Formats: sequence, C-alpha cells, structure tokens
Amino acid sequence: MIDGHGDDSFRYGTRIRHNFSTNICSDVDHSALIDFLAKKAACIKSYPEPRPESIEARIAGKLGIDKDNVMVTNGATEAIYLTAHLFQGGKSAIVSPTFREYQDACAIYGHSVTFISSLAEIPADTTCVWLCNPNNPTGVTIDRESLLDTVAANPATVFIVDQAYSDYTLQPLLTSAEAAGINNLVLLSSLTKRFAVPGLRIGYAVGCKNLMSEIGKMRMPWSVNQLAIEAAGFLLDHSDDYVIDARSLHSEAHRIRKALEELEITSTDTDCNFFLAKLPHGKTASQLKDFLIDSYGILIRDASNFEGLDESYFRIASQRPEENDLLITALREWMSQS
Amino acid sequence: MIDGHGDDSFRYGTRIRHNFSTNICSDVDHSALIDFLAKKAACIKSYPEPRPESIEARIAGKLGIDKDNVMVTNGATEAIYLTAHLFQGGKSAIVSPTFREYQDACAIYGHSVTFISSLAEIPADTTCVWLCNPNNPTGVTIDRESLLDTVAANPATVFIVDQAYSDYTLQPLLTSAEAAGINNLVLLSSLTKRFAVPGLRIGYAVGCKNLMSEIGKMRMPWSVNQLAIEAAGFLLDHSDDYVIDARSLHSEAHRIRKALEELEITSTDTDCNFFLAKLPHGKTASQLKDFLIDSYGILIRDASNFEGLDESYFRIASQRPEENDLLITALREWMSQS
Repeated sequence: MIDGHGDDSFRYGTRIRHNFSTNICSDVDHSALIDFLAKKAACIKSYPEPRPESIEARIAGKLGIDKDNVMVTNGATEAIYLTAHLFQGGKSAIVSPTFREYQDACAIYGHSVTFISSLAEIPADTTCVWLCNPNNPTGVTIDRESLLDTVAANPATVFIVDQAYSDYTLQPLLTSAEAAGINNLVLLSSLTKRFAVPGLRIGYAVGCKNLMSEIGKMRMPWSVNQLAIEAAGFLLDHSDDYVIDARSLHSEAHRIRKALEELEITSTDTDCNFFLAKLPHGKTASQLKDFLIDSYGILIRDASNFEGLDESYFRIASQRPEENDLLITALREWMSQS
Repeated sequence: MIDGHGDDSFRYGTRIRHNFSTNICSDVDHSALIDFLAKKAACIKSYPEPRPESIEARIAGKLGIDKDNVMVTNGATEAIYLTAHLFQGGKSAIVSPTFREYQDACAIYGHSVTFISSLAEIPADTTCVWLCNPNNPTGVTIDRESLLDTVAANPATVFIVDQAYSDYTLQPLLTSAEAAGINNLVLLSSLTKRFAVPGLRIGYAVGCKNLMSEIGKMRMPWSVNQLAIEAAGFLLDHSDDYVIDARSLHSEAHRIRKALEELEITSTDTDCNFFLAKLPHGKTASQLKDFLIDSYGILIRDASNFEGLDESYFRIASQRPEENDLLITALREWMSQS
C-alpha cells in the first residue's frame, strides 16, 4: 500500500474547509442516511452476511441482471485486489496515468505491468487491461464503441473497466447489462462516488457469471461490515434523492480550467467534474498544496505520485461555484507571489 | 469462502430469540456506543485513513508496545488472509478441529495443509502453524509455557496464534508484549469478541516489527471503514465499561455440560464460555438445530463443517442462566422425542 491517496483530509482535520482533493461531490445532503444509520446502529451486535448477498440481489434487481453477475465488495478497491489475485502472475497493461490501486494490486499479486497511454498499445499476450473511465486523474473518457470493439477483438484478455465516476460524466459509458453479457470484462462501480459516502467502503463488480464466480472464490468472509450493508440498502431505496448534477459540475470544472489557463496552468480537457493540471516554470504541487491549506483551508490533490507524472501536477474536482471562485482567487494569489 | 459460519442468525431474522451459535457474549449493553455512532454517522462523508494508524497507535499505547508492532485489520479475518498471502505456497499445519478461516486462507494462497491434533505433531519444514487459543470450537486452551517453548524450538516456523477469545477464559495466555518480542509469532486479537461487536469488523495482529511490516505490504487501503474506526476509538476509551464475566460464563458452560452428560451428549472440557458437543446414536446436529429454531427460537452452531468432525457435532456458547435453562429444557425434550 502506498501513502498519498487523494482525500487525505484526515491528516488536516478541521483546517480543511474546502476539499477539492476528492473527486466526489461534497455538496450532498446525507441527513436522511445519517438518521437511518443512527436508528440502525444496533446492527453491530450481529455478524454481517459472509457475502453481502442481500445487497447483491438488490443491485442486480435495479440493474436488471442476475445476482450472480454482481459482486458487492469493500469498496471497488476490494474488487480490484480480488481480480488481481485471480490473475496472479499475469501480464497486465494499465492505461496511464490513472488510479494507483491497479498498479499496487498487480504488484502485490506478481503481475508484470506495462503502462500504456491508449488501448491501441495493448501488448501481445496481455492477461489483464486496467482502465478507469472516466479516467482518474484526467477526467477524460474513452469512447464506448471503440472500447467495446477492443474488448471484442481481444477475447483472451480480461478488461477491468472502472466506472467509479460514471455518474459525474454526460458521456455514454458501458452498461451493467452489457458487462454481464461479455466474457472478458469486469465492470467496477462505486457506491462511494455515486452517493458520496467514501467513509462507508462499498462498491461492486459486474461481469459474466463465470468470471464473478472465479473472482468470488478469492473473497474473505464479512469484508463489508453491517453498517455499510445497512447504508447500501438505504441508498438503493432512495437513489432518486441522490442526484449528481454532472452538467453543472462539468461546466464549473471548465470554468476553473479557463481561469487556470490565464495563469499558464495547463489542464486536461475533462469529460466530468475533475481534471489534471500542470504548473509552469518548475513550480511544485506540494508547495501549492501547503499554501492553499495554510492560507485558505483548501485541499487539493498533489498528483505527483501518479505513474508518469512529476511534481508539477495536481488534480482539482469542481465544488460549489463560490468555492471554485475562492480556489481561483487563491491560485491567482499564489501564482503572482511565487 | 465457505458458507456455514457460526452466527448465521441473519438467515433466520426475528425467529431467533436466543443465540447460542456465536461464541460472543450477547449480554452486553451497547447503548453508549450506539449513541456515539449515531452522533458520528456524518463521518461517512470522508475517506478513512488508508491504514487505521490512529487506532494502531492507541492500541499500541494501551498494550505498552510500539505502533509498528500492531496492525489493525478488517476483523482478525483480514489478518489471517494477509498472513496466508505473505507465506503463499508454504507448508501449513493447522491444529484441528478449529476455526475454518485458517484452512480457507491457506487454500486460497496455495499452502499445502496438514491437520494436526497437537503441537507435538508439527511436521518438519513447516512454514506456518495456525492455532486458536482458546480453541474454537472446543474452548480448550493450550498451556502458555509449552506453547512458548514450541515457538522457541521452531525458529524457522511462523506461529499464528489466534487469541480472539482471550477475554472469555481465566487461563493464562500469551501477552502482546511477549508477541512483539518474538520473531516468529503473529498474535491475533479481535475487538469483535472483546466488545461483542461482530457487525463492525475490526481486529488486530501483534508481532515483531519486521513481520508486521512484511504482512502490512499485502494490505489494501481503506479496508476498515470510518464507522468501525470511530467505534474502535470509543471502545478503547471505554474498555473498562465492557467487562466480560468469564468466570460466570465458564461455570454456566460447565453447568450445561453436566446436563448434557445426563442426556448422553458428550462435550469438550472447555476453559471458556463455549464448548463442542457430540450427539449420541447417529442423531444429527442439523435436525437438532431445526428443532430448536422452530420450537424455541434457539440458534446453535452445527459444527459438522469443521475439519475432522461429522454431522453429530454442535457448538454451544453459554448465555444468561435463564437462557441456558431453556436450552437444557429444549435439549431434554428433543432427546426424549427423537
């Protein structure tokens, strides 16, 4: 496990008043869920299901697929590690720069890893291709048709497609029904991102029954605790109350990008709420991060530990307009000073 | 992962009024913890620490050891799987019959497994010895001095000693301070059992810094969710409020054993609150289990899926005296009928 993951607000506690470091929309009213959990807290007195089958069945029902096509895990992260375990010692290609966990899981399970910048570069005899769509940290999406074509053209390669941020983009992505019908695809989804509950740790994988069954054999029991199971049930029942305004978040992201451009800070042409930015003139993201925390209580993601990136890179996820204005003001101040 | 773990009360819901199937004392007042969690529920909005370092430090402080000697995990179960992973492909000896997870974790990580009935039978060149002390399902403890001698006499073998039930016995066991000073020992502890919170999934391993560091490299981030971290902090602060009356539970267990003896049901001479029992005359635990659920809302543990046991075995954990009386009455009725 590496340190330096996105939301390290736990390190700074109350000093952080505006969190741009997580890709998750922070503007969500959780009061109903919190009330529900408060009432359900006595559930800690009994063991959870060894496998969260009840939630798997409910997710399958919502998605219109069979429960054997769904595996609920301790965050999508557990599904990443279980898949890396099943294909232990294989040849993996990771579309980079991207979420660090694919690389770490492959390393722990002895994969030989090649970093590629597009699906056109998949090496021969690749066991697993890992990609995030929309991609973290760039926010860019891969065209769904060309992705489906690539998956079909490489039947001996398993594609792990992490759609954790699917609700934050307007671009068409793969559907769970499609994933359930493809033999060499694992589609990862995250309740963390969909419902903005990163503290709960609950996500799921969708794929053909055979692949889900094989990956499932690597599971340990009780990996999802009972409070997460209860919360997941509530969120599935009330999913309509959790609307992510992808359009506004996306346009706000581009408004920030325009302001950064004027400061000679380049950034990726994102399809969702977050993007990757690069500082000019040898300025470092860690210096910027420290300044923003100290002067404005703003947390950004130092992106220098993403494979292939250097210390000039950072990641921003758009928040409320007034918060985004504050970020722009703060960036102007720092760029003019430093 | 196998099905058929101990507390499968989730399968029966409100039909279960008396749960003898879990080894955990159910007679615990959790109201203060539940109130605390209700207040803390908003913590689901932020990521937990990738590693629960804050809890590791607090446990280390309580135990008088260094935080690098402690690894907090998603239940002791995660520590079992991480250890099996580190020693992947090794030769394991499991002191049986015992908790199923050692065997399952070894199978998933390609260990060759030998089942032994005592520490005297450890085969040559054994990589890992797994034992539970007090042992689940028998409740019997291994003498601490002979255990320490065996560990010292086999420096090339790592001993995984699961003391999840340490608070339920009066017998002297290994201490965390001892474990931190031994190079070939991993001591597993469970907050689940100590505080009767199986729904939370939080436990920890103690060992020398090198072993904890090597096992820690196998960890995925965020495996312990934020509600479990908050709860663990509360429980550590209020541990004095959680007293397990091991003496009474132990004597109640022996009172039940005496009553069973009169019914020709033999049982293990337990050192704690639970024991393994064997039905006479080809009667099966599954028939008994069904009868107890249907007629009395009593849940017992069908122990037939423990390695080396058959369908005549079941496990009982003593509960409140009046509940134990009810169990004895129910058993008398079933034995006279069937």
